[in-house]
Parts: sequence; structure tokens; C-alpha cells
Amino acid sequence: MLTIYGDRISGNCLKVKYVADYVGIPYTWVDISVLKAETRTHEFLKINPAGQVPVVRFDDGRSLAQSNAIMRFLAEQSDLIPKDVWGRAKMDEWLFWEQYSHETSIAVTRFHVVYQGRALEARDPALVSKGEAALDLMEQHIVDKDWFVGRAPSLADVALYAYTQFADDAGFSLSARPNVRAWLVRVAEALDL
Amino acid sequence: MLTIYGDRISGNCLKVKYVADYVGIPYTWVDISVLKAETRTHEFLKINPAGQVPVVRFDDGRSLAQSNAIMRFLAEQSDLIPKDVWGRAKMDEWLFWEQYSHETSIAVTRFHVVYQGRALEARDPALVSKGEAALDLMEQHIVDKDWFVGRAPSLADVALYAYTQFADDAGFSLSARPNVRAWLVRVAEALDL
Repeated sequence: MLTIYGDRISGNCLKVKYVADYVGIPYTWVDISVLKAETRTHEFLKINPAGQVPVVRFDDGRSLAQSNAIMRFLAEQSDLIPKDVWGRAKMDEWLFWEQYSHETSIAVTRFHVVYQGRALEARDPALVSKGEAALDLMEQHIVDKDWFVGRAPSLADVALYAYTQFADDAGFSLSARPNVRAWLVRVAEALDL
Repeated sequence: MLTIYGDRISGNCLKVKYVADYVGIPYTWVDISVLKAETRTHEFLKINPAGQVPVVRFDDGRSLAQSNAIMRFLAEQSDLIPKDVWGRAKMDEWLFWEQYSHETSIAVTRFHVVYQGRALEARDPALVSKGEAALDLMEQHIVDKDWFVGRAPSLADVALYAYTQFADDAGFSLSARPNVRAWLVRVAEALDL
């Protein structure tokens, strides 16, 4: 049996839940609170020395961290990973972009606003500008297509959905990005979220 | 013929060069200066709307960005990608960790110090502490092994090598991390750098 250690307020952790549910992998979910610093306990660091959720653990003791690496492993052989090499390459491009340019701006700003109580006016201007640019890039890319890569939903869509669904809470406007908004609905329908 | 658009001061760009050289893929290298903002020109944004190097372009017009996604594509079928699914999963874990926790601290601090002339004492304390933790994690992981994943060099080693080789320039101490130092020598030998 797979154990997922995660925090339901974290889009990174939700990615793993979404994929396990979609693919039909049974799992036990163990709540690990980021706000209560439960990722920094001696016990948790034995599972993931990087002190981050999500991390998954198998019965034989093996564990795997990093949301996008976990998704890629759990979705192996599923239709969430393109069959062609080029499709997988473009999917990987979005996965790395998501962690470098999207999560680090939108998820971090959401954390400041929603979980640390920072006022919208007090948001970090550099992060806001980075997050706005990330959403603009998504809006521009999705304008003439249904999915980020190829003609079917892939892990690229799951990864980008995870925090884009909460962008409004962080003060980013989705109403100004109708194509992203329509795509969010498509992803939720495709993954039955 | 493959065209690599890159900046030789960027570890992310060097990763692509290292892998193309190792695998024996012929390419044309086009210098794009980050310092001169050549990643923000109208012409460059047509190749990579994210405005980042490295990006590679093929003769048929297809292009691919994100250093770790490019490496994964170019190294497909080579011995730099483990043959077993679990080995690939652990490699991916390190690739995502590198971009999220290592590059964002060590590469960014190096940029401040080496290319923007910031004094070591004026480094961003949060980034310094994040970078020190990243190097500690590497030192702890590599203490009883030769390579980050499995028994041979993989893209995990290439990705981590790219900026770790420059950590000293950013004021991080490699002499305090003998296992990382020895591993750097092994990677350089294995890849003939």
C-alpha cells in the first residue's frame, strides 16, 4: 500500500492525490501540517531529508519526494503521460517551468496572503510581477488549444492546475484570463475533481 | 542540426552543452547574453516566450526550453538515464529538487556576487541559508555512494554539478564538504569536462 504524506492546503500535495485518484492507485493519506512545522520533525526528516511535502512511501521502505517526480512515477503507463517522446519532452518543459516560475510566485504569494495573513497591498511586488507574467504566458499558450501539451490532458495540466485554481485567493485575476479559466474547468472535468 | 541558444556563464546552459557533447549530438551554439537582456528581445521571445535560456531549436522549427527537460530529451536512450523505472523516478526527484532548492539559492547568490558585484557580506541571508542547507543535504546523501542515483552517473549528477562547481564563487564552502568535492571530480572525469 502506498502512503502519501501531504498537506491538503498545498497544491503540490494535491497533485499527487489527483493523480493517484485518477489512475486508481489505493493509498493511505497521512496529514503533515506545514504550518505546524511537521515537515521539520526528526521522524519526518527520516522519510524526506529535504523536509518537504509531498513525499510518498511504499511498504518496502522506499520513498520518493518532489510532486512532479511523484506524479511522473505514479502516472507511468497511464494516459496522463504522452506516448511520443516529443510530447513527453514538452510535458517535462511545463513541469519544470511550473516549479521554477509559477509555484515560486503564485503559491508563495498565496501562502503569504492566505496562511500568513498578509494584506494584498503588502504582497511582494517582485513575486506579484513574476506571477502575473506566469499567468499571462499560460493565457497566451492556451488561447488556441484545449490542453497544454498535445490533444489530451497530461501531467502538465495537472501540475499547472494545482496552484492556478487558487490564484484568485492570492490576488491574481483569473477573470482577466478567460482562456485559463475555461481550461481550469476542462481539467477539473477530465480529472473528476 | 540542433541549435542551442545559451549563455556560457549559466550552469543551466552548460548542462545542455555537457549532455550534447557526451551523447555526441552535433549542434550550433548561439550565444545569448543574460546580462545584456538578450533573452528579452522580441526575436528571442518568439523562440522561448518564457524569456529564458537555455532553449534548443530543431531545423523543423520545434523548440524546447528548461535545462532539465532538454537534458532528458537529448539523453533519451543514453546511459545517463537509468533503465529502471525507480531509478528514473529518483533521478527526476533530484532534477526537480535541483531547480527548486539548489539553483534558486546557489545560482542566484552566485549571480548577485559574481555578475552584479555584490559583496559577500551583503548576500541575501535567506538565500545563503537555503544554499548551505542544499549543500549539506548533498554532502549527507553522497557520503556513502559515488553517484546521486544508482551505480553510474546520471542526469541527476549533471544537473547538480552545473552550479555546485561554482558554489565557492558565491561564498559557499566546498572545502567543508569533502564528499561533494570528491564527487565533483568524479563527474568531471565521467563526462570528460
